[in-house]
Amino acid sequence: MLIRLRKHLPEAEIQAILAAADQMGFQARFLDRERELVELSGPSRPDARSRLEDLAGVRDVLDAGESRELFARDPARRSSPHAGDSVVSVGQARFGAGHVSLIAGPCAVEGAERLIEIALGVRERGATVLRGGAFKPRTSPYSFQGARHEGLEWLRRAKLESGLPVVTELLDPRDVELVGEIADMFQIGSRNMANTPLLSEVGRTRKPVLLKRGFAASLRELLLAAEFVLAGGNENVVLCERGIRGFDPNTRNVLDVGAVAHLKRATHLPVIVDPSHAAGRPDLVRALARAGLAAGADGVICEVHTHPYEVHCDGHQAISLEEFARLTADARAIAALDGRRLVTDSAQETVS
Amino acid sequence: MLIRLRKHLPEAEIQAILAAADQMGFQARFLDRERELVELSGPSRPDARSRLEDLAGVRDVLDAGESRELFARDPARRSSPHAGDSVVSVGQARFGAGHVSLIAGPCAVEGAERLIEIALGVRERGATVLRGGAFKPRTSPYSFQGARHEGLEWLRRAKLESGLPVVTELLDPRDVELVGEIADMFQIGSRNMANTPLLSEVGRTRKPVLLKRGFAASLRELLLAAEFVLAGGNENVVLCERGIRGFDPNTRNVLDVGAVAHLKRATHLPVIVDPSHAAGRPDLVRALARAGLAAGADGVICEVHTHPYEVHCDGHQAISLEEFARLTADARAIAALDGRRLVTDSAQETVS
Amino acid sequence: MLIRLRKHLPEAEIQAILAAADQMGFQARFLDRERELVELSGPSRPDARSRLEDLAGVRDVLDAGESRELFARDPARRSSPHAGDSVVSVGQARFGAGHVSLIAGPCAVEGAERLIEIALGVRERGATVLRGGAFKPRTSPYSFQGARHEGLEWLRRAKLESGLPVVTELLDPRDVELVGEIADMFQIGSRNMANTPLLSEVGRTRKPVLLKRGFAASLRELLLAAEFVLAGGNENVVLCERGIRGFDPNTRNVLDVGAVAHLKRATHLPVIVDPSHAAGRPDLVRALARAGLAAGADGVICEVHTHPYEVHCDGHQAISLEEFARLTADARAIAALDGRRLVTDSAQETVS
Amino acid sequence: MLIRLRKHLPEAEIQAILAAADQMGFQARFLDRERELVELSGPSRPDARSRLEDLAGVRDVLDAGESRELFARDPARRSSPHAGDSVVSVGQARFGAGHVSLIAGPCAVEGAERLIEIALGVRERGATVLRGGAFKPRTSPYSFQGARHEGLEWLRRAKLESGLPVVTELLDPRDVELVGEIADMFQIGSRNMANTPLLSEVGRTRKPVLLKRGFAASLRELLLAAEFVLAGGNENVVLCERGIRGFDPNTRNVLDVGAVAHLKRATHLPVIVDPSHAAGRPDLVRALARAGLAAGADGVICEVHTHPYEVHCDGHQAISLEEFARLTADARAIAALDGRRLVTDSAQETVS
Repeated sequence: MLIRLRKHLPEAEIQAILAAADQMGFQARFLDRERELVELSGPSRPDARSRLEDLAGVRDVLDAGESRELFARDPARRSSPHAGDSVVSVGQARFGAGHVSLIAGPCAVEGAERLIEIALGVRERGATVLRGGAFKPRTSPYSFQGARHEGLEWLRRAKLESGLPVVTELLDPRDVELVGEIADMFQIGSRNMANTPLLSEVGRTRKPVLLKRGFAASLRELLLAAEFVLAGGNENVVLCERGIRGFDPNTRNVLDVGAVAHLKRATHLPVIVDPSHAAGRPDLVRALARAGLAAGADGVICEVHTHPYEVHCDGHQAISLEEFARLTADARAIAALDGRRLVTDSAQETVS
Repeated sequence: MLIRLRKHLPEAEIQAILAAADQMGFQARFLDRERELVELSGPSRPDARSRLEDLAGVRDVLDAGESRELFARDPARRSSPHAGDSVVSVGQARFGAGHVSLIAGPCAVEGAERLIEIALGVRERGATVLRGGAFKPRTSPYSFQGARHEGLEWLRRAKLESGLPVVTELLDPRDVELVGEIADMFQIGSRNMANTPLLSEVGRTRKPVLLKRGFAASLRELLLAAEFVLAGGNENVVLCERGIRGFDPNTRNVLDVGAVAHLKRATHLPVIVDPSHAAGRPDLVRALARAGLAAGADGVICEVHTHPYEVHCDGHQAISLEEFARLTADARAIAALDGRRLVTDSAQETVS
Repeated sequence: MLIRLRKHLPEAEIQAILAAADQMGFQARFLDRERELVELSGPSRPDARSRLEDLAGVRDVLDAGESRELFARDPARRSSPHAGDSVVSVGQARFGAGHVSLIAGPCAVEGAERLIEIALGVRERGATVLRGGAFKPRTSPYSFQGARHEGLEWLRRAKLESGLPVVTELLDPRDVELVGEIADMFQIGSRNMANTPLLSEVGRTRKPVLLKRGFAASLRELLLAAEFVLAGGNENVVLCERGIRGFDPNTRNVLDVGAVAHLKRATHLPVIVDPSHAAGRPDLVRALARAGLAAGADGVICEVHTHPYEVHCDGHQAISLEEFARLTADARAIAALDGRRLVTDSAQETVS
Repeated sequence: MLIRLRKHLPEAEIQAILAAADQMGFQARFLDRERELVELSGPSRPDARSRLEDLAGVRDVLDAGESRELFARDPARRSSPHAGDSVVSVGQARFGAGHVSLIAGPCAVEGAERLIEIALGVRERGATVLRGGAFKPRTSPYSFQGARHEGLEWLRRAKLESGLPVVTELLDPRDVELVGEIADMFQIGSRNMANTPLLSEVGRTRKPVLLKRGFAASLRELLLAAEFVLAGGNENVVLCERGIRGFDPNTRNVLDVGAVAHLKRATHLPVIVDPSHAAGRPDLVRALARAGLAAGADGVICEVHTHPYEVHCDGHQAISLEEFARLTADARAIAALDGRRLVTDSAQETVS
């Protein structure tokens, strides 16, 4: 590792930093006469970079070298994006290592019948996980906050009827058991990416976690949010790029496909995209799903609804079952371009 | 109110929207032949805009008119920024209606002696509230997460010794009682602005809340976050602009002084600025504090430390007691420019 | 069209607006009692929206309706992205209406031999246009500003040797003739998207123009920049999305694939992507090219170099000939997904 | 200086870099075993950093050290913002070194009578420079592009009648003589900050230049744009912060007061703010002007109009003469806070 100290640091502070490095097992060597550049050599530790950056006298870490967080891809495998991948499984779905899977369903769950109808519809057309929010994070206290406990019950019924596993959002660390009874995968939404009590709670479980990037979070911030889960012992984290806040009104967010491509080199964790929240309008969802997959994403989560005008939610972006079937066909073809495979329940799917 | 429906909406959906409007007590009138523009007249309701926007068939609200959330300033008083203000009091500190107060202290609390030293130092120089984090929201699980329970104990001692009330961050809805035993004001940090369970919890108390703007949150998002607290019955909300994420590396964030100026017209709630997190470096803190106050802010929260190299925190931005004394003098002078007054404990302050 | 006037507009101003509308051939009708909403009906005019927005009393244009700029796609053809496309041809290259073409070459031209070597290399691997800057827009006056006149001479030789047409950047309206002698297509760079004298100059020619989106330009700003060229009578405009300024340091810019997808619905003009400037690093170029094409782009412009360490330019993002050959294969496959075709010089290309 | 080379650089490339450093007069010394960190010592040169960054094998410049561009403030004077300032004079106006001046006038000039009326009005109320555009950079080709030659004639008359010097925008390098006949100061607008032919042209004159920051330009990009002018021999550059593109709709741009504060430390050039374009609405202009001055700005440029509904321009942000008088009073008071002085034509001004 190579770190840079602040200029004109008092000698006592330099010694404190060297002691901290020593405690982590590093040998330190100053590179320059001004004693600002310090080369540290020693064991690879997941906490090294964060702990060094935490010291007030350290200006920056110039080369993280042996510091390797749990999320980090083995550097020797950076050029072969899918070889060193972790795989996260949710029911039949597989994310990573050349497996591409699709998650689909309504934004919020708004009734058992409708939810079952949608679940059967998306299962037939290639989805292997059902999405649907029971607890919704909303901008306004007067907006529909989700059907809550009743919504969880609807999800339970839809699971039974469709056989699909369910991903649903967890908003409150006090709900981890309640939601965990139904959910096969916890969703941590964009607004909660940095909610560390929530991350720590799901880190204590062994259930897969879908972690959405905050809409203005840097990639290191996203990866360190994942590290909160991984450090708790839960290795089943799937990252999700869902668009960053931009300035053009034609799309709600900007789907950052460069982030997808970079993440596939920086981490072994699977990465999927959410084209629905990125677009904020149904007609662009399929194009964005294609773009995300072409950039290397291991899957797609998207909103599908059979009756779009019934929705009480933060957008009007759900696509129809027909459009979802086209998206599935696209996903299969793009996955195949570089030897990946779309995972579907072949017994069910009727789309060629 | 004036709302616009989506084009070519099915008649059943139009009727559903009209029924929802009727239920809210509105008379509806179509303005155009295509039946897309609807004028609603009726009672002023805080929930009207949010509930209408929630309907999938509503494209947008063109004129919010009688919809007036609890945060909203009486429109008749928009041109006289301080006349219609709410005042929030924390100990001797007053925010709003021409009162300007200063909050100062360390980023995180890291020991009782040091904290007391800082508390006495900032009290002497014009602060009327002590800040200091016991529970810290950190980007990495390996960074110092705050002294937690021990930190709360240090805050209790510093309160006793200095007589200053304390604002400290609340991260987890499960900690509201624990933290509330010590805190005179809850801080909801930037990363938790949209953490609705947390907002709802502090809305159930009657303790003042310092609500920081998310670093990529729009002003309406900030105001609706405040509405979660207000709607719970807690009227003591102080908003804080602390910088939005920009692209230039010379400052950590961009202090949005236009947001301060706009908020003072849009809401009766007090608005303060945090120049420390905006700057991310100590030498610009005072200039940003001045700018925020000159734009109309009702106060400043800033990091002050007597031994800056001891800090284990997310920056190196604390200013010295001497610089804080200069900041206080600036604040008094700028407040006076438009007839406002810096509130200090005159018995203690030695700065002229 | 539907426009909204400012509140409490003096009657004389209302009359002035009505007179302006009348002069454009519109019948005006007020929709509301407050006389703020005006419905205008009449002929479709490319200048209507811009001219109405220009009036100080007009608050906004709520529905552009019959206002249809020259760039606008026929609304009836918005759902079939490639059916209503214009096609722009440069030598054998075709952009739009189902044709996909690749532009490749060095960032700046730095010597005749090297340029010819690269030109032959990219032609063999599927490029149909050679790129290369002779006049470079640089951030610093001390950076290499391009080989200028000598560079144009090298481009002339490379055209002769390779048979490829050339696109090169035009920086100065005084150079339009000089550069036009060599260039088969003018490039207007990101920093000059809003340089209206330059846009007007190329609008007077009939030579194809590659117009890059400014790195913080909205899509309407980009389209109106194109309108400057179109209004001059030059219909040969190709738009280029090259990344917008973001906040994450891992990529230089954020390739806005949603912009590509939206533009294909909003305009009949061809849209290509520049993955090189978006990525700012060679290892992500191919992934971003794939993403752009999958979102609907009609082509790719990318930097290719045989000796990357020789480059004196604003990045280190050029890919090798081998990587470009893989990009070409990707482009062919993705184009085929929705029935489009990669245009190559089949006599030359050796890639299967 | 401290530079970092790319990893695994071929030996020939390392030698090429060392040769380039030698040619600039630097002694090079490798700090680390991997030969990636190079310390360069030698003369202070304005071009060193830019030229080194231009080499493809150089990864980054870690410490610019002796590289000191012409814009750079003497490091020894960074802590006393006004002591090392350059002063730029335009008529009686002075910018920098403790002098604060106000520029006011209409966005575009739209008639001689009106312009004279405004010029006399702002002169009486404290402005020492008249602003007004004859050539306007517009987003749409159908918007009013300025009165052009006729507008220059109106500016000439307003100068004569009011005695105020004039700043007006230069859009086209071919117009430098024409505009220079009337203008006492050239304005380079936000959209042209990176228009290097234009910057070079005004660098050849000795007339003061008002250089506006591009709305998404980093501060180094702004300073290097100024360097184009300075390197041409024209030392009379005033920088202007006018707001960066944000995401909240309540203000048109985000006035970056941190940029003002940083620039005052980084450069000796004067820095002013444009609150009109930042706000995009008249009611916030005064608050933003105050904020900019409180952050350290050496002046303000703002739009003032006697008949706001006549304006055909890119906004509706002009303030009245009365509001401008209040802004002048604010500016005088804020300047006085740290010993600066508002420069006015005392013979004319009637505001106390």
